[in-house]
Amino acid sequence: MTLAARRLSLADATSLIDRAFSRGPAEWAVLSAAGSRVAAEEVHAARPIPRSDRAAVDGFAVAADATIGASSYNPLVLPVRAISAGDAIPPGCDAVIPLALAQPLPADFVECIEPLAPGENVEMRGSAAAPGALLASAGTLLSPAHLGVLAGAGLTGLRVTRRPVLRILVAPRGEATDSNGPMCETLVCRDGGVVIETLAVERSRQGIRSALEMAGADIALVVGGTGPGPDDHAAAALADAGELAFHGVALRPGETVGLGHTAGGVPVILLPGAPAACFVGYEMLAGRAVRHLGGRNPGLPYRSRVMRLARKIVSAIGTTEICPIRCTAGDAVEPLPSFAEIGLLAAIAADGFVIVAEGSEGRPQGAQVTVYLYEGKCIGG
Amino acid sequence: MTLAARRLSLADATSLIDRAFSRGPAEWAVLSAAGSRVAAEEVHAARPIPRSDRAAVDGFAVAADATIGASSYNPLVLPVRAISAGDAIPPGCDAVIPLALAQPLPADFVECIEPLAPGENVEMRGSAAAPGALLASAGTLLSPAHLGVLAGAGLTGLRVTRRPVLRILVAPRGEATDSNGPMCETLVCRDGGVVIETLAVERSRQGIRSALEMAGADIALVVGGTGPGPDDHAAAALADAGELAFHGVALRPGETVGLGHTAGGVPVILLPGAPAACFVGYEMLAGRAVRHLGGRNPGLPYRSRVMRLARKIVSAIGTTEICPIRCTAGDAVEPLPSFAEIGLLAAIAADGFVIVAEGSEGRPQGAQVTVYLYEGKCIGG
Repeated sequence: MTLAARRLSLADATSLIDRAFSRGPAEWAVLSAAGSRVAAEEVHAARPIPRSDRAAVDGFAVAADATIGASSYNPLVLPVRAISAGDAIPPGCDAVIPLALAQPLPADFVECIEPLAPGENVEMRGSAAAPGALLASAGTLLSPAHLGVLAGAGLTGLRVTRRPVLRILVAPRGEATDSNGPMCETLVCRDGGVVIETLAVERSRQGIRSALEMAGADIALVVGGTGPGPDDHAAAALADAGELAFHGVALRPGETVGLGHTAGGVPVILLPGAPAACFVGYEMLAGRAVRHLGGRNPGLPYRSRVMRLARKIVSAIGTTEICPIRCTAGDAVEPLPSFAEIGLLAAIAADGFVIVAEGSEGRPQGAQVTVYLYEGKCIGG
Repeated sequence: MTLAARRLSLADATSLIDRAFSRGPAEWAVLSAAGSRVAAEEVHAARPIPRSDRAAVDGFAVAADATIGASSYNPLVLPVRAISAGDAIPPGCDAVIPLALAQPLPADFVECIEPLAPGENVEMRGSAAAPGALLASAGTLLSPAHLGVLAGAGLTGLRVTRRPVLRILVAPRGEATDSNGPMCETLVCRDGGVVIETLAVERSRQGIRSALEMAGADIALVVGGTGPGPDDHAAAALADAGELAFHGVALRPGETVGLGHTAGGVPVILLPGAPAACFVGYEMLAGRAVRHLGGRNPGLPYRSRVMRLARKIVSAIGTTEICPIRCTAGDAVEPLPSFAEIGLLAAIAADGFVIVAEGSEGRPQGAQVTVYLYEGKCIGG
């Protein structure tokens, strides 16, 4: 069968990826190394947060009763203790006058111009979280604020999902230099993986096969040599080295992505050498595998938003097409020159993209479409 | 003057940060290390992209003239050469039949069922970028696709802005362990900086002063000891070690942020020790300094979107307040328990936040507000 005849739908290829990859093993990470890692299990508060009643704002600790009757016409002079947000409330006090509402006087007195209720500007023991409260669910991508919360709860580290380890084999044509390695390395890194080696291999059936047989990793990516041309040997080499699960997906760009594994059990994903096809093939399929293994959400790592097409998109029926777009005004987007027209430059010119499903010949002007927005690009009003 | 009396508006504090920090020096980075770095100067194409006419899709190269009259009723048998997207078009050919539209026959022939126009599915020399075309402007945060484009244009590296180097001095109270270090380190890293050391210092005027005098870095952060309490020595220590530019900002949380520099010229930012105040103080002011130095957009590194308040927000007049929100349905958001009520847990419970300006007592139900969305949180329809 030819590459064209046996190509899978993107949905079927996605299902095969989803079946082949699942969350990897857990390991311990200290908090200062846990940023952007993924919690491997639920983390619960071992003690109440806060541990004791504490000031919620900077100011002056007082007994609320003593402030009854205070106003700007009747400022009360009170003995107080200066206190910072987060400090334990001293004995005998139960409220905090914010800095801006008190006029300090010498010798630890202030003028108070508003009465306070007991507990005002005080964060009560256990009010943020009771013992046992869930602080992070399994699969949480740990943000800076998570690390602060976990440290504040007394943790020094936690179990996180191990980073997937990838080996990238680039097979540029003839004397050409590879141009996909840096892009692929950065994509893997964004998805939480670690590239242990990017190796240029000889673009021959035997060259790629030998490299695959030596490639210990959680995933090996072969970049280049996936097409229908006479020097495209990646699929045959993978079949020789183990097994080819599929080669060819009704996806444009990215039509010649493949999946398989070596006899040693290393999963292998074949990515086209044309830069735009490599990029989209990674985003839609290889990246999904990396994200699965790392315990992340396997979906596209972009925000999506339903927006309105200012001009129609034309697409070939029978193929899922990735169509670059630019945000215009409000919630409107317009199609840009395609990956087929300007290659990978389409990705840097675009604010994001629309996925036109294989059953569709495109989308009319005015259609509501789900737009995936590249990082740092427009989001509209 | 007291901390309360001399506090700056957030706008004034922001202006002082903007005047104190600007883009740092440039250095060379190879492409594989340039992901998420910032281009220090414009990068132009040295040659046309693509360099020669090339296949825009996988398929079969043909002379378009030979396909005239082809249809599914009249399939033409044509000699062709299999070709991958990105391959140079062979001599004598000027169009590419996509894989899906050709039925391969033995011996390099296919059945063609549609006529092609000259240039169809061919990316013409220079069509994506003419020589001299701008590939990345100064200040571009380099995405994976940028690296692919630059590699494809023949670059092996480029000049990028040097990462800001930070030293973090944490001054926890008494026997307490610091809980802000991992959070601050991860925030600095997110903003493109490098933390060379996080050092716990003695929480005394002399202890903080001595640590500041030894702190070589692009920025030193002092975390803790900024409040009005009796053991809050950070501002006095900074004044001793050099100069205090301001201490106290009408920002909640984050009211006791400060800025200054050592006698040796190292800029110093004081952050409160209360975790929520540390977090917000970093986001609004310290992070801005880091982003300036690294050549990034100094604004908040979050997407923003105008959304609608499902319930009113109450805020104290005279102070800029950071109010956590949750996205509900459509473009609606509702306020969550505040940082003052549940501390840093507010940041992990929230989808994002609204900034209520100091001149405002809050925002009514139904108001259109600019929402800053935390990474990986909802974006709505």
